[in-house]
Formats: sequence, C-alpha cells, structure tokens
Amino acid sequence: MSEILPMRLAGRRPMRVAGLMSGTSADGVDVAIVDIGPRGPHRSANVTLVAFDTFRHPPALRQQIFDLFDPSKARIDALCHLNFVLGEVFAEAVIRLARKRGIPLESIDLIGSHGQTVYHIPEGRPATAGGSATAGRRVGRKRLRSTLQIGEPSVIAERTGITTVADFRPRDIAAGGEGAPLVPYADYALFSHPHKTRAVQNIGGIANVTYLPAGGALSDVLAFDTGPGNMVIDRIVHHVTGGRARYDAGGRRAARGAIDDRLLGELMRHPYLRRRPPKSTGREIFGTVFSDRVWQRARRRGLAPLDILATVTAFTAHSIADAYRGFLPSMPDEVILCGGGARNTTLARWLQAELLPGRVAPMDEFGLSARAKEAVSFAILAYQTIQGEPNNVPSATGARRPVILGKIIPGGRR
Amino acid sequence: MSEILPMRLAGRRPMRVAGLMSGTSADGVDVAIVDIGPRGPHRSANVTLVAFDTFRHPPALRQQIFDLFDPSKARIDALCHLNFVLGEVFAEAVIRLARKRGIPLESIDLIGSHGQTVYHIPEGRPATAGGSATAGRRVGRKRLRSTLQIGEPSVIAERTGITTVADFRPRDIAAGGEGAPLVPYADYALFSHPHKTRAVQNIGGIANVTYLPAGGALSDVLAFDTGPGNMVIDRIVHHVTGGRARYDAGGRRAARGAIDDRLLGELMRHPYLRRRPPKSTGREIFGTVFSDRVWQRARRRGLAPLDILATVTAFTAHSIADAYRGFLPSMPDEVILCGGGARNTTLARWLQAELLPGRVAPMDEFGLSARAKEAVSFAILAYQTIQGEPNNVPSATGARRPVILGKIIPGGRR
Repeated sequence: MSEILPMRLAGRRPMRVAGLMSGTSADGVDVAIVDIGPRGPHRSANVTLVAFDTFRHPPALRQQIFDLFDPSKARIDALCHLNFVLGEVFAEAVIRLARKRGIPLESIDLIGSHGQTVYHIPEGRPATAGGSATAGRRVGRKRLRSTLQIGEPSVIAERTGITTVADFRPRDIAAGGEGAPLVPYADYALFSHPHKTRAVQNIGGIANVTYLPAGGALSDVLAFDTGPGNMVIDRIVHHVTGGRARYDAGGRRAARGAIDDRLLGELMRHPYLRRRPPKSTGREIFGTVFSDRVWQRARRRGLAPLDILATVTAFTAHSIADAYRGFLPSMPDEVILCGGGARNTTLARWLQAELLPGRVAPMDEFGLSARAKEAVSFAILAYQTIQGEPNNVPSATGARRPVILGKIIPGGRR
Repeated sequence: MSEILPMRLAGRRPMRVAGLMSGTSADGVDVAIVDIGPRGPHRSANVTLVAFDTFRHPPALRQQIFDLFDPSKARIDALCHLNFVLGEVFAEAVIRLARKRGIPLESIDLIGSHGQTVYHIPEGRPATAGGSATAGRRVGRKRLRSTLQIGEPSVIAERTGITTVADFRPRDIAAGGEGAPLVPYADYALFSHPHKTRAVQNIGGIANVTYLPAGGALSDVLAFDTGPGNMVIDRIVHHVTGGRARYDAGGRRAARGAIDDRLLGELMRHPYLRRRPPKSTGREIFGTVFSDRVWQRARRRGLAPLDILATVTAFTAHSIADAYRGFLPSMPDEVILCGGGARNTTLARWLQAELLPGRVAPMDEFGLSARAKEAVSFAILAYQTIQGEPNNVPSATGARRPVILGKIIPGGRR
C-alpha cells in the first residue's frame, strides 16, 4: 500500500488481523485479512491487504435477517437463534478465506467483527417508554440511544481459536454518541498524511466524507453525510430504463444527457445541504419518494429522461463539492473515492471538475481495494482496541470523549 | 470467610470485584462487592464479601422485561432499547451500593455481570429453521443451541469506568455446552476443601447440587438438578392458604402436617428422579400443572391440606437425598444449603435426617451470605476470565472442553 501513513498504528506490535462486515443489505459477509506492521522507511506499507473475499448469504438466511429488521415480524426466539447462526457463518467465512488463500489460521492474531446490525435507535427513547415508573433513580428520565448487532463473537472465537473483538457501536453510544459513523477512524488510520489534506469520499446510497487535514490529529477529523450518493441516481435509472437497469453502469447513460440548470438549482436548495455538520441522512430524505417526485416534476416540464439522469448525477457531485466549500476548514489536496459511486465515471469526472486543483481518484490508486475497505476498517478498529487505544471519532459520532470500542473475546487455541 | 479454600483463586493478584445478577424472576439486581486475595496462612479468607444489596426493579421495568420473555409479545425495538436501559440500571446499582457503603468506586478493579436472560434455547434448533437452504456450507445442517442475555456491559463500563466482563453463557454454548449451569465453578472456587467432600445444595424453585469431592480438581466436580425445590411446595401453600401465602415461611406449616407415605412413594417414582445426570429440569416438569394434579389427587383421597404440604416438603428432601445416593460417587461430609429453601427449617431438618452422618448447614455458617452467592459467583467468574483462566465446568454444562467465558469490556477511567 503506497502513500499511507497510519500514524496511530505506527510503531506497535505487528499483527495479522481479519476484519468481518455484513452490511445493511445483508447480502453476504465481507472478510479481509490484513497485516498491520510498524511503518517501514520511505512510506512503506503499514497495513497490507493479504486477502479479501465476499461470501454471499443463501437467500433463506438473508430472508431470516430481513425479518429481524421489521419489528412487526421479528421474533425474539429467532433473534436468539440467528445470533448464533451468524456467529457460525462469520467464523466459517474467516476459515474459508484463509484456507482458499493458503493462509494458516494460526497466523491470524485477531479478528474484528462488526456483526449484522438488526436495529438502531440513534434518536433515542425515554428510558421507560410509556410508563410512569423510573427504571432507577437516575436512569428514569434520560433519553437513551441504542443499537443492536448480532453474529455471536463467542462462536467466532471458539471456532477459529482467535481472539475476537466485536460489537463496536454500543460503547460509543454509552459515551453519548450515535454509535455511527465508525469508519472515519479507519480512514484516519489508513489515509491521513503529514503534508496533504485528504478527504475520503464514500458514495454509497448516501454520500459521506471523512476530512483528514494534513498532519492533523484524530480530534481534527470531521465526518458527515454530504447528501445523496447513488440513491437518487439509481431510482432515476429505474424510471429511465423502465426498471431494466438498477444503476448507471460506469455513468454511461448520464454522459449522454445534458444537465438542466433550473432543475439542478432547485435540487441544490434542499434544506439538508444547508444544515451544518455533524449531520446524517438516509432513505427517509433522499429515497424513492423524493426521487419519484423529482422525476415526475421534470417529466411534466418536458425534460428528456437522460437529461434528468445527468442532472441528478450532477446533483450528487455538486452537493459533495458544496459541502466541502461550506463545511470543511480547507479544501482537500486529494479526494479518495470509494463506494459504488466511485465506479460512476461521469460522476467522478464532474466531481473532479468541481474540486480542482484537488485530485480526485479511486481508492484503489491509494493502495487499498475500495471493496475491501469496510472489512479492513473493522480489522483496524479491533487492532486498536486490543492495544488499549480509543478508536471512536467523537467529532463524527457526537460522543463526549474518545473511548475504546468493542468487546474482547479471548481466543484460546486448542 | 472461614473454611474456604479457593484453590483456583489462590496466589493471584488481589482484586476488588463487583458481581451483578438479575434472575429469571426479574425482580431486581443483586450486587455484591468482594475482595479476592491470595490465600493467607491458617485458611484465612481468600474471598471476602465487602458489601451486598438487592435493588428492586420498579414494576414498569419488570413488566417490560417479562414482555420480552414471551415471543408473541417481545419486540425487537423494545429489546434493543431495554438492553441499554438495563445497562444503565446495572451500572447504577454498583454506583449506589458503593456510595451507600462508602466504598470508593475507584477501588473496584473489575465488574462481572450476568445480565438478564431473556431467551434460552438449550435444546437447539437447526441452523436454518424451516428453510431448505444452508446458512453456509458447513453450518447448514447443524443443530445450534443459543441463549440471550441483555444489560449492555459497554454502558456499565462507561458509567463506572470499571473494566467489565459479561455475557458468560454464549462461549460455553459455542464449546458445545448448554451454557448452564455456570455457578458450579464458583461453588468449586469458594467451597472445595482438601479433606472434606462437600455438596452445595441450592433449593430455589428447582433444586440443584454441586458435588465437590475432597481435594478434587475442577474436572471432578459434578452438578445437576436433583428435582423439585420450592416450586411444588409454594404451589401447595397457595392451595392450602387460599392464595394468601406464597411460601411456607420457616417451614412452619409443613411442620404441623404428617407425611403421607403412599403419596410420597408415588411422587418418588417420578421418571425425572431416575434419569442419570447431567440433567436439568424446570417449570415444564414440576410447575403449576404438576403441583395442581398432586393437590387434586391427594384431596380426592381425603388427605388434609397440611399433610399434603408436609408430603411435598418431604418429596423435595427425599429427592435430593436419593439423588446423592444414586448419582454422587460418595456421600458428602458437609452439605452447604442455599436458595430460598434453605430458610425452610422443616425441609432442612428432614434433609439433615436423611443425610446423616453428613452435616447439613446453611451457607451463612460457611462464611458467605446465601443471598449474595449468585452475585458473588459472577464476580469470581469475571476474575478468572480476566486472569485468562477457563471457568466453565464441562461436566456440568456438557461442553467439549474448558473455555474462558465472557466478553471483556475495557473500563477506561476518565
């Protein structure tokens, strides 16, 4: 990995660490195995990706996970059971990847597992919902945030024999944060640079940035959702293609359209874009309802389908650039792109045009496969936990202080 | 504490440890603070109970917990939320006990928290229930046990600043056990003796024994449910008093009745009593349905209410003694009584008569308050986990091997 300066990881004991992630789409487990070592001379690699793969969930398992997302369908016995099932699935993913790539399991020192989020209440609830009694003298009137990840790490530790760190979000919540986002810490560890200001720009359904000022400390890191990522684009593609395509491959369709300035101007007046960070958004704001309304309004005005697509693609690029100009202390020298949107060449080109003289480039050019990044992040978080280093980013999560995230489950080789 | 020889705890770093327990009745949190130190000369104390109290849950909280026990009522959002609420309640219990007794919170090195069990599937389920697809190549056809405890330990660690070990049961399950019973480990640590064979006899709703042969190792420990404890007695008291009394205080009512040999003989032919250990039982077998049938049959035969009560009290005493004779390698020199049944003097006297020349005495005479024992047990389990010592009892849980139970959450003082 070139050009990476993981300051917080420098000079510690080298370790081989596996990272595990299963996202909200619940389509499979990402496993990354990385070597984290002391920094060598000449900016040599500190974090080296040794292996990566995604193991897709069978449809029945995916359905069982989705059933847990819905409070009207979720059963506590199913949750109790599926926590252990996913523990087995996560353990198996590490074992299979290691075997496939000829990596001795005994060479892996540590596993970091995010688990599968099944519920998240970042807005909080009163400690005793609906009741007049207090949960305790001091607890009663507090509003408590909560989050729930499953994939029993005791099973991972037992099957692999490898010490496992898991369940990273609750501690940040306990410290007053929202338990998210956690990835900015890894962005900082992986990409912060002594002389260059960088932004790690993820373009998923929603777009989010991690700002890493040159030579900055963890407390200088900013991270927030800039606004829409692919969510609006994907929905417009659905309309443009009559449902045949799910996304604009390579941004080729948008490249054939023309940006409509009036529509773009209207979109850019969205109130979310004016709100100061920390802020986060989601499907409630930029989802199907929003996108369908944009589509219908534009069609009524007679805009051509591909022009609408070009315009919402520009909306994502503009809203990112605008957020940088409005909310970052300085413009980045380098913008490291990841997420599905990084493969939308039209979007990337327009973003590059907006952010000159900064350089916009895919994460792969910075030495790390964008696909592997989330799983790598949880390997890094686990590494820090085991070293006793705080690894949340209070400026991103809203936590009162830096804390050591996660629960440590001793491996105990046979 | 006199006469205690905690072999596994001897010679390690002294620590002050808090133990937290909330039982299946969900009526409150037990908190014990103990000093665990190296063994002194002349059998001096190794585990000293510094403070103990129970903090009762307000009725609304208790109801919320009970709603989680019932899969038809339990909601995943309520579970997600209540996990954090109980974390706050547990943390507050430690803080309140420490303050009340003038113990500086900073003097506590470690917390061991059992949490609140909300679901337990010891019989296991196929990995993908009802589906034909497999959860993974190797996971699919396995039958998986599972268990679910809540009371977020990240909250306990954050509020107290004290490193917390929690969630002890899943690792034993991962190692092939039932995740229960866990207390035999603490029985062994607290009460095993170089020259005396001892049994720790807990009489709760169900009665269970931990057998500690003189000078034995952990692998010599046996533990199983002997059969009914107070469950049948309490239900018969309900009938005898027309619902006015919930238990036979001091065994005074049973003392006024006469044992009916025919009924006792019938009860003693219950098939559970003949099954070889390891075995466990519960409300499904000796609950209300069973007790009501006993009551009705006996009343039809014209037995007096107090005679029925005396007979079911003798049933508990006989079934315990019979289990010792049938299943323990040797009869104990000392039987250490705990649980609510230890305060039923009639029951204790009859048990003593059956077990002569062994001595039957309440746990308090062995230096530990019986009320505090469960909470103390989780302090001891946490202490062992943090020392890297396996602390399950495979002969009791059915696990394939000794493992280190629990998840470690770093404290991080401010």
